[in-house]
Amino acid sequence: MKIIARIRNDFKEKFGIPRQSGILDSFKSRIVFEPEYRVKEALRGIEGYSHLWLIWEFSEAKRAGFSPTVRPPRLGGNKRMGVFATRSPYRPNPIGLSSVRLLEILDTADEGTVLIVSGADLLDGTPVYDIKPYLSFTDSHPDAVCGFADEVKGYLLDVDFPEELLAKVDTGKRESLVRLLADDPRPSYIADGDRIYTFSFADYEISFNVENNLLTVTDVAVR
Amino acid sequence: MKIIARIRNDFKEKFGIPRQSGILDSFKSRIVFEPEYRVKEALRGIEGYSHLWLIWEFSEAKRAGFSPTVRPPRLGGNKRMGVFATRSPYRPNPIGLSSVRLLEILDTADEGTVLIVSGADLLDGTPVYDIKPYLSFTDSHPDAVCGFADEVKGYLLDVDFPEELLAKVDTGKRESLVRLLADDPRPSYIADGDRIYTFSFADYEISFNVENNLLTVTDVAVR
Repeated sequence: MKIIARIRNDFKEKFGIPRQSGILDSFKSRIVFEPEYRVKEALRGIEGYSHLWLIWEFSEAKRAGFSPTVRPPRLGGNKRMGVFATRSPYRPNPIGLSSVRLLEILDTADEGTVLIVSGADLLDGTPVYDIKPYLSFTDSHPDAVCGFADEVKGYLLDVDFPEELLAKVDTGKRESLVRLLADDPRPSYIADGDRIYTFSFADYEISFNVENNLLTVTDVAVR
Repeated sequence: MKIIARIRNDFKEKFGIPRQSGILDSFKSRIVFEPEYRVKEALRGIEGYSHLWLIWEFSEAKRAGFSPTVRPPRLGGNKRMGVFATRSPYRPNPIGLSSVRLLEILDTADEGTVLIVSGADLLDGTPVYDIKPYLSFTDSHPDAVCGFADEVKGYLLDVDFPEELLAKVDTGKRESLVRLLADDPRPSYIADGDRIYTFSFADYEISFNVENNLLTVTDVAVR
């Protein structure tokens, strides 16, 4: 498998990345092709598509051996489901699949032609194996039944982000950040309101705790 | 990349496979896990999903080197588009992506637990790298704009299948076969009404010609 491109964005560490693509419509990423694939002709016609598929490597989630079951964070982290019934990164082949919205095709001096997309749930630097156009007549099944994922899809936390802390964050990144926090970036639902979690986003280290359904930001450090 | 499963169905050769998944709702395939991944627990919860993603290898479409453009058959075979703007098999990594409908989960004596799916546009024996649940709230974009694919998506041939020839085909396979022919299995649109094409489906060798928008079956041989 050849790396054709890498994603560039503000997700600097795994903790805090939304668990599904599309959650962050406002969140932009840049797809930068590797020098070998930096050929503008390879993108001819892509401007006609509103959405793309990215097939990529779960580069931060490698595990030795095959574990037939995983514990989805959205089920509280203590219930096991078959790996093929989940989108967990811990699968026989660490391949991720995300649909993104294509916003712009930019010719740059340093990086050749890059794609600007929104909604990518990929860590900065993630290797991309393939980019395909999204074809609604075969890829879209709005009425698909989605098992246990259907039961938890509306799950969001309330977010209390004190004004003096929010003021430290670049205005253009506030909406994405609050949406990320509401999505509950904890690895599992640990009933421990005293625990302080930290995660990195763009140039910020955000500290927070969660009690019941309320996430409270306790600190914002600028790196 | 590890092969986790192989597809089993009536598509015995590449010529004649529909160009996109989902076209053949009536056409069933069986997903047979490799012995190492033949573990029923790995499927726990999958019964709750109506659709799955298959990520698989274009095992019959390997080419040396990177060609930035391809000629999509649906554009007549003589217009070049960027490879990343198409679902062509001739891409840097020969990875295919297909959504299928999950019909049944069967415990078998010989092959362990197998998945019965419909709509798979994969050749018999194709290696499968991953199976993921289809999540409508992130994967479904019914209003996605689909570039040149939108312009050609309604394309179908009229099919003239003489009754005495159709009688040779198993009744359960007739509908799929006619639908496959309407989808125009020719590699490109060659304006040559005299040319006879042949393709294999299940136990049959179907011969046909195409003139203007009419495909006429000229022979059915049973293997």
